[in-house]
Amino acid sequence: MTDDIKAQVLGIAPLIVALRRDLHKHPEPGWKEYRTASLAARHLLDLGYKVTMGADAVRAEARLTVPDPATCARERRRAVAEGADPELVARMGDGLTGLWADLVCPGPAPEGERPGPLVALRFDMDANELLESDLPEHVPVREGFASRHAGAMHACGHDGHTAMGMGLAAVLQTLRPRLRGTVRLIFQPAEEDGLGAAPMAAAGAVDGVDRLFGLHLGIQAAHTGDLICGATDFLATTTFNIQFTGRAAHAGIAPQEGRNALLAACTATQNMHAISRHGDGASRINIGQFAAGDASNIIPAHAAIIGETRGVTSAINKYMMDEVTRMSEAAARMWGCRSRLHRTSDCPGGASSPELVDVVERVARDMDCFRHIMRTRSFRASEDFTWLMNRVQEHGGQATYIQLGTDRPAGHHTRRFDFDETALTSGMELLARLVLDSLKARD
Amino acid sequence: MTDDIKAQVLGIAPLIVALRRDLHKHPEPGWKEYRTASLAARHLLDLGYKVTMGADAVRAEARLTVPDPATCARERRRAVAEGADPELVARMGDGLTGLWADLVCPGPAPEGERPGPLVALRFDMDANELLESDLPEHVPVREGFASRHAGAMHACGHDGHTAMGMGLAAVLQTLRPRLRGTVRLIFQPAEEDGLGAAPMAAAGAVDGVDRLFGLHLGIQAAHTGDLICGATDFLATTTFNIQFTGRAAHAGIAPQEGRNALLAACTATQNMHAISRHGDGASRINIGQFAAGDASNIIPAHAAIIGETRGVTSAINKYMMDEVTRMSEAAARMWGCRSRLHRTSDCPGGASSPELVDVVERVARDMDCFRHIMRTRSFRASEDFTWLMNRVQEHGGQATYIQLGTDRPAGHHTRRFDFDETALTSGMELLARLVLDSLKARD
Amino acid sequence: MTDDIKAQVLGIAPLIVALRRDLHKHPEPGWKEYRTASLAARHLLDLGYKVTMGADAVRAEARLTVPDPATCARERRRAVAEGADPELVARMGDGLTGLWADLVCPGPAPEGERPGPLVALRFDMDANELLESDLPEHVPVREGFASRHAGAMHACGHDGHTAMGMGLAAVLQTLRPRLRGTVRLIFQPAEEDGLGAAPMAAAGAVDGVDRLFGLHLGIQAAHTGDLICGATDFLATTTFNIQFTGRAAHAGIAPQEGRNALLAACTATQNMHAISRHGDGASRINIGQFAAGDASNIIPAHAAIIGETRGVTSAINKYMMDEVTRMSEAAARMWGCRSRLHRTSDCPGGASSPELVDVVERVARDMDCFRHIMRTRSFRASEDFTWLMNRVQEHGGQATYIQLGTDRPAGHHTRRFDFDETALTSGMELLARLVLDSLKARD
Amino acid sequence: MTDDIKAQVLGIAPLIVALRRDLHKHPEPGWKEYRTASLAARHLLDLGYKVTMGADAVRAEARLTVPDPATCARERRRAVAEGADPELVARMGDGLTGLWADLVCPGPAPEGERPGPLVALRFDMDANELLESDLPEHVPVREGFASRHAGAMHACGHDGHTAMGMGLAAVLQTLRPRLRGTVRLIFQPAEEDGLGAAPMAAAGAVDGVDRLFGLHLGIQAAHTGDLICGATDFLATTTFNIQFTGRAAHAGIAPQEGRNALLAACTATQNMHAISRHGDGASRINIGQFAAGDASNIIPAHAAIIGETRGVTSAINKYMMDEVTRMSEAAARMWGCRSRLHRTSDCPGGASSPELVDVVERVARDMDCFRHIMRTRSFRASEDFTWLMNRVQEHGGQATYIQLGTDRPAGHHTRRFDFDETALTSGMELLARLVLDSLKARD
Repeated sequence: MTDDIKAQVLGIAPLIVALRRDLHKHPEPGWKEYRTASLAARHLLDLGYKVTMGADAVRAEARLTVPDPATCARERRRAVAEGADPELVARMGDGLTGLWADLVCPGPAPEGERPGPLVALRFDMDANELLESDLPEHVPVREGFASRHAGAMHACGHDGHTAMGMGLAAVLQTLRPRLRGTVRLIFQPAEEDGLGAAPMAAAGAVDGVDRLFGLHLGIQAAHTGDLICGATDFLATTTFNIQFTGRAAHAGIAPQEGRNALLAACTATQNMHAISRHGDGASRINIGQFAAGDASNIIPAHAAIIGETRGVTSAINKYMMDEVTRMSEAAARMWGCRSRLHRTSDCPGGASSPELVDVVERVARDMDCFRHIMRTRSFRASEDFTWLMNRVQEHGGQATYIQLGTDRPAGHHTRRFDFDETALTSGMELLARLVLDSLKARD
Repeated sequence: MTDDIKAQVLGIAPLIVALRRDLHKHPEPGWKEYRTASLAARHLLDLGYKVTMGADAVRAEARLTVPDPATCARERRRAVAEGADPELVARMGDGLTGLWADLVCPGPAPEGERPGPLVALRFDMDANELLESDLPEHVPVREGFASRHAGAMHACGHDGHTAMGMGLAAVLQTLRPRLRGTVRLIFQPAEEDGLGAAPMAAAGAVDGVDRLFGLHLGIQAAHTGDLICGATDFLATTTFNIQFTGRAAHAGIAPQEGRNALLAACTATQNMHAISRHGDGASRINIGQFAAGDASNIIPAHAAIIGETRGVTSAINKYMMDEVTRMSEAAARMWGCRSRLHRTSDCPGGASSPELVDVVERVARDMDCFRHIMRTRSFRASEDFTWLMNRVQEHGGQATYIQLGTDRPAGHHTRRFDFDETALTSGMELLARLVLDSLKARD
Repeated sequence: MTDDIKAQVLGIAPLIVALRRDLHKHPEPGWKEYRTASLAARHLLDLGYKVTMGADAVRAEARLTVPDPATCARERRRAVAEGADPELVARMGDGLTGLWADLVCPGPAPEGERPGPLVALRFDMDANELLESDLPEHVPVREGFASRHAGAMHACGHDGHTAMGMGLAAVLQTLRPRLRGTVRLIFQPAEEDGLGAAPMAAAGAVDGVDRLFGLHLGIQAAHTGDLICGATDFLATTTFNIQFTGRAAHAGIAPQEGRNALLAACTATQNMHAISRHGDGASRINIGQFAAGDASNIIPAHAAIIGETRGVTSAINKYMMDEVTRMSEAAARMWGCRSRLHRTSDCPGGASSPELVDVVERVARDMDCFRHIMRTRSFRASEDFTWLMNRVQEHGGQATYIQLGTDRPAGHHTRRFDFDETALTSGMELLARLVLDSLKARD
Repeated sequence: MTDDIKAQVLGIAPLIVALRRDLHKHPEPGWKEYRTASLAARHLLDLGYKVTMGADAVRAEARLTVPDPATCARERRRAVAEGADPELVARMGDGLTGLWADLVCPGPAPEGERPGPLVALRFDMDANELLESDLPEHVPVREGFASRHAGAMHACGHDGHTAMGMGLAAVLQTLRPRLRGTVRLIFQPAEEDGLGAAPMAAAGAVDGVDRLFGLHLGIQAAHTGDLICGATDFLATTTFNIQFTGRAAHAGIAPQEGRNALLAACTATQNMHAISRHGDGASRINIGQFAAGDASNIIPAHAAIIGETRGVTSAINKYMMDEVTRMSEAAARMWGCRSRLHRTSDCPGGASSPELVDVVERVARDMDCFRHIMRTRSFRASEDFTWLMNRVQEHGGQATYIQLGTDRPAGHHTRRFDFDETALTSGMELLARLVLDSLKARD
């Protein structure tokens, strides 16, 4: 199918590649996406979209983890110095870096009927906290668009997602006369830590949405030309940290006066990993970080662990967290310490709507760029897209999570990650056609 | 020094050896010493001693562990069938098998003064729960006095202690005209589990005692001719059992519904062994027994552990038990179980009175049967004699624990334990001389 | 469908109920089924079946756990005293209590072709080691057929399975003229411990089988009238015991000389329960029994644990056992002990053949006794039927495991288990029709 | 006793206080004492002592932990910039910052005899890695001599020790005509980590010494006017770190591919704390630091723990380290990881020579500045002075460790530690008198 949509996409492709490279050069981790979000917002306002942003787009009090104001102020200054629009940046306050943009389409709604469906697409914007490779063969190095922010890097393709979203905005503006209803483009911050979707859902980002599409480069779709139309078995997940506080003592002279926080954390860790498996489906537990104590001759008074649970259903994940919670208290008591558990993120489980998977498959099969199309795969990992997907599905809408294949030299979340930029073109075309399929005005 | 005391002792030695062998043939574990105690009581009554026994000698409610009435009734019948005096046995009720016997001496107390000191000697009577060796070279087998009670055996020399006590009673009766004050011979049950001394102390066994002597065959005095006049560093000790109760579940279908009592007991055990050492002196912890679960495919609902703590002071032992108590509750909570801790015995720490050690050393050096006399040794184990010793010392009296050397073919508490019966003679002579030293009437 | 098959089944139903009650009265746990197997063999021989039994039916050296000869001799005498055929019992040697019986059918095989398919049905015979309830309302008590073997009980319905198999033998003999090919009735011992199927498979019990049916009363089919035509997600499982051997020492005097086997077992248990979950599917681990140590004051020299692993695939179960094996050695090394791991049973995972599930569903829907027919359920437990099922499937045949609903007053493997005997009738009819469907001679 | 020694000491006291304050202002942690050592060496050379330093005084290859050359070069430049003698600094190479200085005395040795005894005194020079308090009431702040090296502080009084040693050098030079034999002043680096004494002993610092004195301000001598003449029960100690290396894996997708180094370190820690107590005397174990893992969703591939063992004898400490070593390997194996244990310091146990304690007590009782003189105290901590003390005692000499009381506002090793400078005067006088007692020329 070589028609006007494909032609338009090909026409803007060089601009979108350039945009992606600019974003790659200026990676912004979660809650710091001031520059990225202001570029997106400026672009969408210029195209005539109605933009919802700042406190209207991210419900501040629904965030589990909040960046500190001083850091936010520093990041805002940095973003402006790198070309962000100062006024838009100011509207994002302390880390309210999400936004959505609506395009209301004219398509004739028959009299007495509602004006047409609401279709939403979600693009995540945040970068990873990682030092990008400086090897000469790493393409961003060779082509001069490697990260200029030491310790931050787009190693998950979100630069591509954002660029595709902005390109799609332009394509849809052109298609608008042929559409009815409303298209909403959602630009989400802080996906990596599973923090950004929930407060945007709480702010209403997907209220009333009939069809929701999420798209990710790579992951299980390993090669350019692969497409996976939906995902099942998203794992519900919670991340947490636990502080144990005891009492220091000299380990030689009076060890009995100590309250050993390190041993409390050890026994917590060991027992948490031994939480009974759940008969109803997959569960996970990991204590991923452990830090305690100061010196070899002091009974440690402080220990901190960081971990996560997962479950193939939210109920199983809750079972795991209930166990973790009780065990953290029992471990503290074991050694006469106190404990404090803090949840740092929370994602439900979920699965794509089969009907919408059918739609994606049908539309994709009509295109000529996908060599290997799969309906769904068991995802067995977590994505905060499930906050949005579940909300849409609970209210009667449909949602799916598409994985768009791309060749890549190294895995996601590694220092040498990169992707095949031709995937940006096929991604934009696919999404444009899905919007058209969803909102095509009656002829 | 070959005088009349030695002559008397040598005169009764064959009788005492025969008596010891009779006791060896009829070993009675703790709270079951009906036959042994009735033989002793009958002998002492016949010699004119004033005997305190039954509920007057053992305060029933001060016992930590109580034998069940059905077992006691069976044991009483067994003892009578083996020649015990039925009337005396009846007076011992349910396991009140301790007694003491007083010999009031005529020695002229100067007018207006108290009638003379009270000197006490303690002999323990109980056997071990052990199957005696049936090897032909084992002396009790060869000489025909091996245990007739399967699973019970005198493997710690208490048969010798009791026989010595009874022989001493006869010697002292003869010495009586040369003495003033009162001699008390205490026959104690249930030493092996550390249970018998406390309720006898509570019944007044050592109230008003000026000098208290305990004597044990062997232990640190390895060879015939060795003598250790006192002991330091008795470890205070507590034994306990802990029951953990959870909830069973099928380990394949619904493991999450279980409350794993076996894991609760494991984490209790591991953490208890890791209780911080005490800066002020030796501590000990041992979980010596562990039993849990029924089948490989059931999450275990029940677990029980048995253990002990020790400390070179009662304060250190209390520190250990406080930790054990808190940890048992925390371990139960770790796995959503309940726990119940029961203390089964309790002995304080202690040390011999140096002044009385001097006395023993002086008296022993005047005898010709000890080749190697040591003042004191660090005992580093537990003995419920400390209940009596501490009580005497707290009220201004003196006490010591003597170890009387004896050659032996195998260690204490083993199936081939035996001792050199010539030690019985030197033991009786030493004790008679110590009484004489303590109560000699003014010439 | 009320036809001759149904009539025949109803005709023998009272006999089969009586037979089931006789078997219930004489329950025989794994490898002790001398009486049950000899009754079945005698019956099948009398009906003209060709019986394979003893060492021909159970490959002795393929058994993981072997009963001891003295016990077997005692059980053989017991069986004969209870009416077993002495000659048949003798052929079963030491625990070779499985057998199969073939009925070769005359149905016209076209010239030059093989004589027709081989269809096998498996019935398990062993009882549980459990004390049957003696409550008057327990039906076997009320009706006088409660277990006469203290500590053994048919609490899983295998008495019913065996009775159905024997009833079916009679029905098939009548149907024989309408059939072609061969029917094989397999009577399997030792299912409860997962031990009986593997050595029968090794002896050739299912070699050449085209269709294999297993049937179990109850389990997931909770009520009379329920039928589940197949099962998926059988968990592969291994059971094992581990012995830890250390060195005893006095816990007060010289604890450092001990090698603590109890702590080795504790750390093994804790770490095994913490084995990492497997990303590819369900895994299980349970240490179900723990026994260690003798006395509170002895560092324990011996400990033994019993446990099991499971996995939704044999590969996952192998992963779990590889971890268990390495950890048992590491735990022993941790405390300077030795360890010995012994596998006591082993079952692969598996799933029913969908095509055969279709057949069962179709045949069942034509009957009037099933009110609620389900295709398959996720089994999530283990059954050694998988040894037979996998072998058939690997060689191109089909196999399924049917669950036949029955009302019951208490769960499987409990002291008050019983089932609704009307299920025996519907079970026999269903199996007879499945044989007819499989082997119907061409008209 | 107010004689010439006291007068001399009082005469130089103001200089010594000033010197101590200069040292306090320039604290140098272990192996970085270039400035301190060069000031001492210059002073001793100027006084005519024969100085042994650099590689002659510290056997480089006997050091357990070695500072890196780049750091040493930087520290040498810093020391020179702060006034150290460049030539002396150069002689100290990479961290060879110990030295000793001999004063050979003329006292008439009778013909044919050895020229007189060798008496040594040890002074430690290193500072703690600690941030000094900046509170205005902290005396070093108020008086302007607080540390100028951020993160380094004399919080253990070694500034006072070094100043006393330098003052004593001057006093002894004056006393020289009255002495015979040789006085050796040993200035030792790196006491805090227990690293400096062993390589100085290996270089011969105490070879041939007849009497060795060490002195420490404070510790168990809490108040000005207290003196403890000797110490028993120095705990032998070893410090160590252990690295565990496993393999990272995604905790959600493929946890089974990980090799969990964090759990290896946890099980090592738990089991090490549970190492059996030793029947022969005090033992200690502490894991004082634990660091592992990177992220909540990654199975940790790296973990590191830092700890120490102690024992009241070197044999008991060795028992503890043997257990630690075996357990570190077993814990790694438990989780399929590798481990590497590195010993970072090692001190033997020990006790003062009773005869030399007598000497100190006698000499101190003749002085008027000690209000409370104790013979010995059980030290129950560790000091690398034991390396020197044991070596002297093994070769027939005598050694003692003196604790010199001083009032102090806060404990050792805290940010507000300080001491009463009048103790410097009494300390110098005591040491001068002890040298005189030891080496007094025959009149």
